[in-house]
Amino acid sequence: MRCAILSIGTEILFGQIVNTNTVYLTRELNNMGFDVLYHHTVGDNASRLKSIIQETYKDCDLIVCTGGLGPTEDDLTKETIAEAFDDKLEMHQESLEVLEAFAKRRGWKEITPNNYKQAMMPTKATVFQNDVGTAPAFALMGDVKNSQDDSIYENKIIVTMPGPPREMKWMWNNKIKPYLLGFSDKTLSYKIIRTFGIGESKLETVLLPLIDSQTDPTIATYAKEGESSLRIASQRPTKEEADAAVMEMIDKVSEIIGKYIYSIEDEELHQVVGNYLIENDISISVCESCTGGMFASRLVEVSGISKVFDRGLVTYSNQAKIDELGVSKETLDTYGAESPEIAKEMAEGLYRVTGSRLCISSTGVAGPGNGKGPNGEVSVGDMFIGVCFDGETYVKEMHTGRDDRVVNRNSCMLTMFDEARKTIMKYSH
Amino acid sequence: MRCAILSIGTEILFGQIVNTNTVYLTRELNNMGFDVLYHHTVGDNASRLKSIIQETYKDCDLIVCTGGLGPTEDDLTKETIAEAFDDKLEMHQESLEVLEAFAKRRGWKEITPNNYKQAMMPTKATVFQNDVGTAPAFALMGDVKNSQDDSIYENKIIVTMPGPPREMKWMWNNKIKPYLLGFSDKTLSYKIIRTFGIGESKLETVLLPLIDSQTDPTIATYAKEGESSLRIASQRPTKEEADAAVMEMIDKVSEIIGKYIYSIEDEELHQVVGNYLIENDISISVCESCTGGMFASRLVEVSGISKVFDRGLVTYSNQAKIDELGVSKETLDTYGAESPEIAKEMAEGLYRVTGSRLCISSTGVAGPGNGKGPNGEVSVGDMFIGVCFDGETYVKEMHTGRDDRVVNRNSCMLTMFDEARKTIMKYSH
Repeated sequence: MRCAILSIGTEILFGQIVNTNTVYLTRELNNMGFDVLYHHTVGDNASRLKSIIQETYKDCDLIVCTGGLGPTEDDLTKETIAEAFDDKLEMHQESLEVLEAFAKRRGWKEITPNNYKQAMMPTKATVFQNDVGTAPAFALMGDVKNSQDDSIYENKIIVTMPGPPREMKWMWNNKIKPYLLGFSDKTLSYKIIRTFGIGESKLETVLLPLIDSQTDPTIATYAKEGESSLRIASQRPTKEEADAAVMEMIDKVSEIIGKYIYSIEDEELHQVVGNYLIENDISISVCESCTGGMFASRLVEVSGISKVFDRGLVTYSNQAKIDELGVSKETLDTYGAESPEIAKEMAEGLYRVTGSRLCISSTGVAGPGNGKGPNGEVSVGDMFIGVCFDGETYVKEMHTGRDDRVVNRNSCMLTMFDEARKTIMKYSH
Repeated sequence: MRCAILSIGTEILFGQIVNTNTVYLTRELNNMGFDVLYHHTVGDNASRLKSIIQETYKDCDLIVCTGGLGPTEDDLTKETIAEAFDDKLEMHQESLEVLEAFAKRRGWKEITPNNYKQAMMPTKATVFQNDVGTAPAFALMGDVKNSQDDSIYENKIIVTMPGPPREMKWMWNNKIKPYLLGFSDKTLSYKIIRTFGIGESKLETVLLPLIDSQTDPTIATYAKEGESSLRIASQRPTKEEADAAVMEMIDKVSEIIGKYIYSIEDEELHQVVGNYLIENDISISVCESCTGGMFASRLVEVSGISKVFDRGLVTYSNQAKIDELGVSKETLDTYGAESPEIAKEMAEGLYRVTGSRLCISSTGVAGPGNGKGPNGEVSVGDMFIGVCFDGETYVKEMHTGRDDRVVNRNSCMLTMFDEARKTIMKYSH
């Protein structure tokens, strides 16, 4: 099915809110096997909204709308959509009852006219009640006339959802997605493969023979700062066939780039590491200089991590490195704080203090600009990671060559997780 | 000037990349006093692109395009745009020379046909060279014919920029924005006022009399997780008048919500705190439990913070709280780790260990689910912040009532910065 995502709301055009709904729905629709042809955003303006709807049906079958349904808005969105489908609004009995029950539960003194408007629906609509807010969603199906040239677009569908992302997601997952899957004649299966340590363009180059040689499964690359993902998708007559085609392609991909893959279940790197630590009861501590708490902060996102995470230290000053980790003043004076030698002493010191099986450290120059060491300049982007597992330590050196504090710190934090992953996979068996 | 932002690229419709360019350009155009009427995204498809361009000029004067200019793309974007303006592509001499010089500098063996295509430009275009990539940008002005009904839209403008955000931003700031400002007949002045501790809807309610009573300056509220901002903008014949009108409105707004305002220069909370610490040479250390390094990580984003930031501790386990901070086992047993008493002992312990003038701590239940204490359950969202300044300590209690780990941790981290801000403003003079 060919579709467009239509966001309604002046606040998006003022830049007051970021349109995260469209990103979410784009991925969802693609993963359902729907073709997304357009994204449109239009303000709360009836004639522009109407004209966009008519134009879009020239080559789309479905419009997925968000926004324009709240209690402070007038009925512009609903009225315009109803009009496009040659329908009109009337009070929807079930929605009215839901609204009155809601008002009673909340102890409202009165239901304002604005609230009543939320229960008005196109007469031919399929209405979906909203368990997490007051605006119901609805779907309309039918013919749409182009008022410019009187041509008729047959059998078109529109679905509308409230704009607040929390409500939209609830409505999508519980009501709209199941409704739309009824129109899908394809069975799509897909997996997101996550990699670390290989750039998107290199990934594309090495996989090109695979990508070019077939049309199903499809392989698409997704870039994120410091990471690249692959989406492998197949559409077959049955789910079993689609699943099998995807798994077969994952095997082929793994033969080429297996060492970069850290998840075939769309998990994030810190989740993979955190869950592995928890499941295998491996204790961890971290001391950070250039990453300044980013690693600890990310690790603590993993639910249940308190079982294995002993402590994190942000030893930003030299004194903190000496006090907390017993780093030697001599090493600091000889090599400087941003050196592989200090990364090693930090990880080893942390192991002495905490006894955690995995102790990991970071130090280096995140920028802006180069750093100063006792032996001259330390280039920006030179960063060092110490990894101590059961008392054995190695240092991973990074030289990003980039003068960007945010990029460098993020890249160092992700590399710490990747080194942690490799280490625990290798030594803990 | 009425305008639309048009993003070109199938990768956005596949959900492979997030359309951050549109968010950026929306704010920029609004801040220049331009009216943004539409956002559109379309794939690399000539007929859809053409039809969108024609439709958009029905009520817009300007289209700002990004994407579709890279070396791997064909000339579809440029050709279609040229065609819409009744123009065609030819080799652009200056762009060719720039390209050849670039290839020579980089030591390319040959310039591929795809690269040569990047130097092809519409004959009537104003071309802007790209210092950070290989695809130039251009602007076209003229009449556009609607091929559907042969109507002519006069004096329309289109500007195109490369899609990669880094290149787009450079091109925008150095070339396109100055070019477009030449078409602006208005003088716009604005300030972004940042607040903490007051929700967006409350902010709107208390400012409603001000918002409703006039049309210039305009006041718009922007919501971000845990924070609300105001944009106060004025358009007057001269910059001086516009500036004065904005400052006068800031005074009125400050009378009502002054205690929530932490910046009138669009700075982030951690920047305000970090810069104040640096400028006043106030040393800081932090120990975090529920925020798990988020505060330290955010603080380290401030350039030059190493001058005052001694260390951060993520004392996740009880043992770490005892070892690192000298928290008493008795207090832990009596009140539990998630308690105001422990927040206080953590901050005081940190002061004993580091001697930093400002020592700040966090502990509490971020979730998911309630926590367990020696005296029964601790509700999810109950979090405690200890603030010790020059040895004097107080505890700030939070009860968000929300069972959302991400929201609670973020909210606690921001509140730590806000308490830090209030404390150093109050005591350091």
